Amino acid sequence: MKILVLGGDGYLGWPTAMSFSGAGHEVMVVDSLAKRHWEQECGVTPLIPIPPLHQRVRQWQQVSGKTIRHRVGDIALNSRFVYQILEEFHPEAIIHYAEQPSAPFSMINRENALLTQQNNVLGTLNLLFAMKSRCPDAHLVKLGTMGEYGTPNIDIEEGFIEITHNGRKDTLPFPKQPGSFYHLSKVHDSHNIMFACKIWGLRATDLNQGVVYGIETEETALSPELRTSFHYDSIFGTALNRFCVQAAMGLPLTVYGKGKQTRGFLNIKDTLQCVDLTVRNPPKAGEYRVFNQFTEVFSVLKLAELVRDTGTKLGLPVKIDHISNPRIEQEEHYYNPKCTQLQSLGLRPKCLSDGVISEMLETVIRSKSHIDEQLVYPTVRWRNL
Amino acid sequence: MKILVLGGDGYLGWPTAMSFSGAGHEVMVVDSLAKRHWEQECGVTPLIPIPPLHQRVRQWQQVSGKTIRHRVGDIALNSRFVYQILEEFHPEAIIHYAEQPSAPFSMINRENALLTQQNNVLGTLNLLFAMKSRCPDAHLVKLGTMGEYGTPNIDIEEGFIEITHNGRKDTLPFPKQPGSFYHLSKVHDSHNIMFACKIWGLRATDLNQGVVYGIETEETALSPELRTSFHYDSIFGTALNRFCVQAAMGLPLTVYGKGKQTRGFLNIKDTLQCVDLTVRNPPKAGEYRVFNQFTEVFSVLKLAELVRDTGTKLGLPVKIDHISNPRIEQEEHYYNPKCTQLQSLGLRPKCLSDGVISEMLETVIRSKSHIDEQLVYPTVRWRNL
Repeated sequence: MKILVLGGDGYLGWPTAMSFSGAGHEVMVVDSLAKRHWEQECGVTPLIPIPPLHQRVRQWQQVSGKTIRHRVGDIALNSRFVYQILEEFHPEAIIHYAEQPSAPFSMINRENALLTQQNNVLGTLNLLFAMKSRCPDAHLVKLGTMGEYGTPNIDIEEGFIEITHNGRKDTLPFPKQPGSFYHLSKVHDSHNIMFACKIWGLRATDLNQGVVYGIETEETALSPELRTSFHYDSIFGTALNRFCVQAAMGLPLTVYGKGKQTRGFLNIKDTLQCVDLTVRNPPKAGEYRVFNQFTEVFSVLKLAELVRDTGTKLGLPVKIDHISNPRIEQEEHYYNPKCTQLQSLGLRPKCLSDGVISEMLETVIRSKSHIDEQLVYPTVRWRNL
Repeated sequence: MKILVLGGDGYLGWPTAMSFSGAGHEVMVVDSLAKRHWEQECGVTPLIPIPPLHQRVRQWQQVSGKTIRHRVGDIALNSRFVYQILEEFHPEAIIHYAEQPSAPFSMINRENALLTQQNNVLGTLNLLFAMKSRCPDAHLVKLGTMGEYGTPNIDIEEGFIEITHNGRKDTLPFPKQPGSFYHLSKVHDSHNIMFACKIWGLRATDLNQGVVYGIETEETALSPELRTSFHYDSIFGTALNRFCVQAAMGLPLTVYGKGKQTRGFLNIKDTLQCVDLTVRNPPKAGEYRVFNQFTEVFSVLKLAELVRDTGTKLGLPVKIDHISNPRIEQEEHYYNPKCTQLQSLGLRPKCLSDGVISEMLETVIRSKSHIDEQLVYPTVRWRNL
């Protein structure tokens, strides 16, 4: 199959590209490399340096004997580029990771809020128009986020909910309560994509993904130069990564507020599995479907406890601190999101075990000398934006 | 009170500005004049020429003895301008009409779809950030549209709906099913504004307005140069205006498809009344509220029949034609939107009577020589975009 990976230089995009290439698909990767620039703007780097995209692609060729085509260009700023790519490559599936992926980044200031919505929303619009014109039968696999839903006091369904109201019934888009300008951009995307499917008959799967953890996939393990990024900073990092770095450094794990904020999580290997299952099972023409993509639910405090327990076994003295929450979010809430569709397509989850955390901790400890302690503390506050 | 009218050169903005000024408020009008440019791009003009904003403001001064301050600038492209305006004027209420207002315009091509979302969404974001910084207590009165809801098979509540699901309950944003890239931009705005109220404590009323008809208000009647625009073309015009022009010209009224598409409507005088009631009754800090703003519900076919009946009485030979629907929309559907909040604030609707239609028809007939017949036929098709 011909698979186009947009945002293919990223944390998930690069492993996705290798995974499909390794499985024998014809893969093209597109990236604007904007994310690397944003990291520089914020003064942060991944724990271990990531080679340039061109070098990763060459290394993959050497290790696997397979070719990943790659193009550098911006789908939000350069619409002709998008049309050209689709014309040239004729993808059957388009995995769309090409968005600004950080909530705190979008909350730094006005410029970043607008940049995030402009980049994400207009990039996706360009893609939809180009698909309509150049490959209307291709399957758009768009990465959304579980954060689009917020934390409603009812069960979270997959994209749609049947509502009975005043004696009548309809199945409607699940109400969204996103918690940052980044999450808002994803909600805007969802509405735009749903509409494009309806009016043009495009087919799309919106993967409302939870928080991804883990750094190793079958392909990254083949060579150090094929690694994917590990961010532990307060802008692009996740709580679990931060906790691992703090544990490795003998610093207290910083839980924001009460820590009862609960979210869906999944292993990066399961992201690859989910994307693969989605690509193998495309929706029909005109269908916009939503899969909730996570395998387990944890509170932030529970994650900290898991890291503490594993750290203790490894001989690290780990303590948990509650610090003032820079975000505005419910710190204790009902959370029961459904995720049955990917399971029914055959997803076999790899859960967050002691072993997985040990592996992460050990990787971090090996690279301890690279850690910049300052980067783990929150600098962006939702209220003071 | 100090009232800032954004988009104050428009069909509703200008009458709103005069109405508040006439009532003794201190009014500033801001407009980018982009709408006049878009009209030129599409090759359409209002039925009767509209003097430049500067001239309207001078005329208002002469007629009423009152001053409306005015500034030309683009809130989407020039964020500094927005901050400067708020700093200079210190508004207590901001009536925000400054958006690209046409669904067909947004559906002409990719450029217009992106322009619409960029202009509307980023303009509103700039405004929110500037308010947060310069006048956090001001009341944002944002014009949304009933079209955000689409046509669900359940009653449409005002912005929020209590949902009971699997034995639990929550009040959530009403699910949105907008029907064009323009309507989508309004949905994006609604989500962004709701979030800004939540995190910064801004106060906002989102007026989900129906289709406005009518050309005369107390103030436009004072002088021909104070008139507001009447668009009958297929891009910026409404169905009712088009029907009036067709009746006046002896052309069949062109109903799109079955014509059972049902929408909320209101008289322009009621728009002024609603905005005034809203400004007089601001929400509390941090509150984002939604009022559905219309007074009656009609199907498009019913509107055509009303125009035919009134036209017949005036001696016009009027016939109704059903033409192929250029839009993608349900042509027969349940429609029961609520609008109790403005009523409970005291709204006294002026309904769509025979008299109102006669008045419109007579105005059109007086300007018959200006009509360009070609402009009434749809040129933009949702599917072929």
